[in-house]
Amino acid sequence: MKTDLESILTKHQLDGLLVVGPAMHNPAMVYLTGGGHLTNADLILKRNGKGVLFHGTMERDEAAKSGFDLRPYTAYPMNDLLRQTNQDRTQALALRYKLMFESAGLTSGRVGLYGRIDAGYSMAVFRALQSLLPELELVGDVENKVLQRAMMTKDEQEVARIRRMGQVTVEVVSRTAEFLTSRRVAKDVLVFDDGRPVRIGDVKQKINLWLAELGAENPEGTIFAIGRDGGVPHSSGNPEDVLRLGSPIVFDIFPCEAGGGYYYDFTRTWCLGFAPDEVMGLYAQVLQVFQQLSAELRVGERFTHFQDRACQLFEAMGHVTIGTDPATESGYVHSLGHGVGLNIHERPFSGSNADPEDILSPGNVITLEPGLYYPERGMGVRIENSLWVRPDGVFETLAEFPLDLVLPMKG
Amino acid sequence: MKTDLESILTKHQLDGLLVVGPAMHNPAMVYLTGGGHLTNADLILKRNGKGVLFHGTMERDEAAKSGFDLRPYTAYPMNDLLRQTNQDRTQALALRYKLMFESAGLTSGRVGLYGRIDAGYSMAVFRALQSLLPELELVGDVENKVLQRAMMTKDEQEVARIRRMGQVTVEVVSRTAEFLTSRRVAKDVLVFDDGRPVRIGDVKQKINLWLAELGAENPEGTIFAIGRDGGVPHSSGNPEDVLRLGSPIVFDIFPCEAGGGYYYDFTRTWCLGFAPDEVMGLYAQVLQVFQQLSAELRVGERFTHFQDRACQLFEAMGHVTIGTDPATESGYVHSLGHGVGLNIHERPFSGSNADPEDILSPGNVITLEPGLYYPERGMGVRIENSLWVRPDGVFETLAEFPLDLVLPMKG
Repeated sequence: MKTDLESILTKHQLDGLLVVGPAMHNPAMVYLTGGGHLTNADLILKRNGKGVLFHGTMERDEAAKSGFDLRPYTAYPMNDLLRQTNQDRTQALALRYKLMFESAGLTSGRVGLYGRIDAGYSMAVFRALQSLLPELELVGDVENKVLQRAMMTKDEQEVARIRRMGQVTVEVVSRTAEFLTSRRVAKDVLVFDDGRPVRIGDVKQKINLWLAELGAENPEGTIFAIGRDGGVPHSSGNPEDVLRLGSPIVFDIFPCEAGGGYYYDFTRTWCLGFAPDEVMGLYAQVLQVFQQLSAELRVGERFTHFQDRACQLFEAMGHVTIGTDPATESGYVHSLGHGVGLNIHERPFSGSNADPEDILSPGNVITLEPGLYYPERGMGVRIENSLWVRPDGVFETLAEFPLDLVLPMKG
Repeated sequence: MKTDLESILTKHQLDGLLVVGPAMHNPAMVYLTGGGHLTNADLILKRNGKGVLFHGTMERDEAAKSGFDLRPYTAYPMNDLLRQTNQDRTQALALRYKLMFESAGLTSGRVGLYGRIDAGYSMAVFRALQSLLPELELVGDVENKVLQRAMMTKDEQEVARIRRMGQVTVEVVSRTAEFLTSRRVAKDVLVFDDGRPVRIGDVKQKINLWLAELGAENPEGTIFAIGRDGGVPHSSGNPEDVLRLGSPIVFDIFPCEAGGGYYYDFTRTWCLGFAPDEVMGLYAQVLQVFQQLSAELRVGERFTHFQDRACQLFEAMGHVTIGTDPATESGYVHSLGHGVGLNIHERPFSGSNADPEDILSPGNVITLEPGLYYPERGMGVRIENSLWVRPDGVFETLAEFPLDLVLPMKG
């Protein structure tokens, strides 16, 4: 949690953080400032929690919402900086950072660097800054040891926001089911009243509309993939595809709060009207693993332990898994789940990118999402809920929705 | 244009590009791959246009749409990389990049680095890579000299996409005007039929709904700011504010294609019912500068020239401008315009961040957006259109909408 940040920084021998970039769709900046319409900003945060937020003059109102001390970039006129650096913009930007660190009273020690900005800018400017401030070491955190360590456990306010996104999500899923099952059918294909076939593009357009109506965005898109595409876990689906009765649909929806805030993550696999035996069989196996692991999850255990369990269970059913063949593209091909928060994928992880500290703990919000994929057989099945690990150790599904495979058509 | 890229790379003595990050909401990657549901990818592009796109196995279908040669990350198992680097993840990631460069046949020379990812990751991993591949120099482009130089002129397909976003934008603006002017008024405040006041939050919710319905996103939010907030150019507006007749509203809307594609940028200032003399006076001055500069814009001139002209014109009217006082927060406080494309703000620039090569040229899509801001007097006025510089040198407004200040209330 945010309240753990000081101790996490201490543990990693960091004296502060430099967080760069906008306060929208930029998890590190949103986490520490609360978000807002800051198109570009820099936050220098000392270990004791005191910080200075540097911002464009025009965005001072938005900056003020953060509660940090404020300083506009106009305090460091770019023309002066360019003059002092022989018109070298990289050096001028590095010099501005040096002055900003001085103004924040942090000019030595180890400082963690965070925020999504252009990679070339980071590499060039921060390399130049290192020469200007040799006593200050900028530390890149490729292992997500620091900020994501704090973000890995959520406080009640954060859980409430994720839960609200869960409610939005199941409302949209429910409207989608209603829309699909209320359609007419011609030659096994869903059609509008005028006889035009319903295509995946039409369904996604509805989904986007409902999400917006309910105050959500889906910057990462929605997966609504039918048949063979559903067998490729991250295929988002072909907008031209029609919806055929009995063909399995993988519907994975992961919206976030408008402006780039907290996410929710949710998947169902549906067959409209009826399910062929082969799909039914695959679904039953995924459901069994989903329910078995729902029952097994417990705090104090590494999340990877349950990935190992998922591999064991699927292998016992005769499937190839990435546990034994990391490059397999059919069978069980991904990890069991991940944390959800300001990032759609964050700690704790259950796959090969997991950290030894990715131990299930109260305050986590995680997904549980076993699946089986056979693109060459024209199908994939995945079931996913997002779960909050409550203070009492119970794994609570944040938004309930039936797990059913078959959606009976109306009328 | 994309077709200029080889000559731009040659001019800047670059042998290729490394583009990192997702293919959504990441302009460099969207530009070169065409976009798609790639949550994480690396593109190594040689100067001759040949490239290899590295991707997650699960996203191979989306990767294939790019037309580049493909290679999945599973070709470089992380466990092996970690073993070879004593479990040092920064070194392991750098080693993977080394192997990827080798596989793409580019291991020496100068390579431009692009794409939005975490700043700490960039700094750490690419520093380590430099040691592993000393013959290859990664070049950060903080001046937007290379990729944005290509993106600065749009081909017809790109212009068509921006124009379509323009149509979406004016449709939403038009619905917003209709919504506002059709409301009842009680004590000078807009109200719903049940007597509840219409708040800015209600209006923004409608705007988001209409944008989604029309296939757009607004990842950067919308500015809908009334009174004093409209006097702070980037204040996005207080959701709780009610809409009072005669109080000036700055409505700046800048949506992009769903999935993170091309933007449009548009502003109107409105007074509902009537405009007080003071607002009318300010509006008339902004309109005069808008029309004067619309007439003066011409190809072959630096964009900054017209910023200077805007400052001259406003100063002649008695306003302070950033031309004489770069830190001013009232008067004319920002630059006249900027390029629009996959970035909401891109080259050519007209302000202090402009490059000498930011010369107005056929293929540019730019904004023209003079404004005047007096927060302490409770008002701001801005008028903005996006213009395409046609091959014949004409500056064509991509989406027409009346410039009127006053929106008469109906009934």
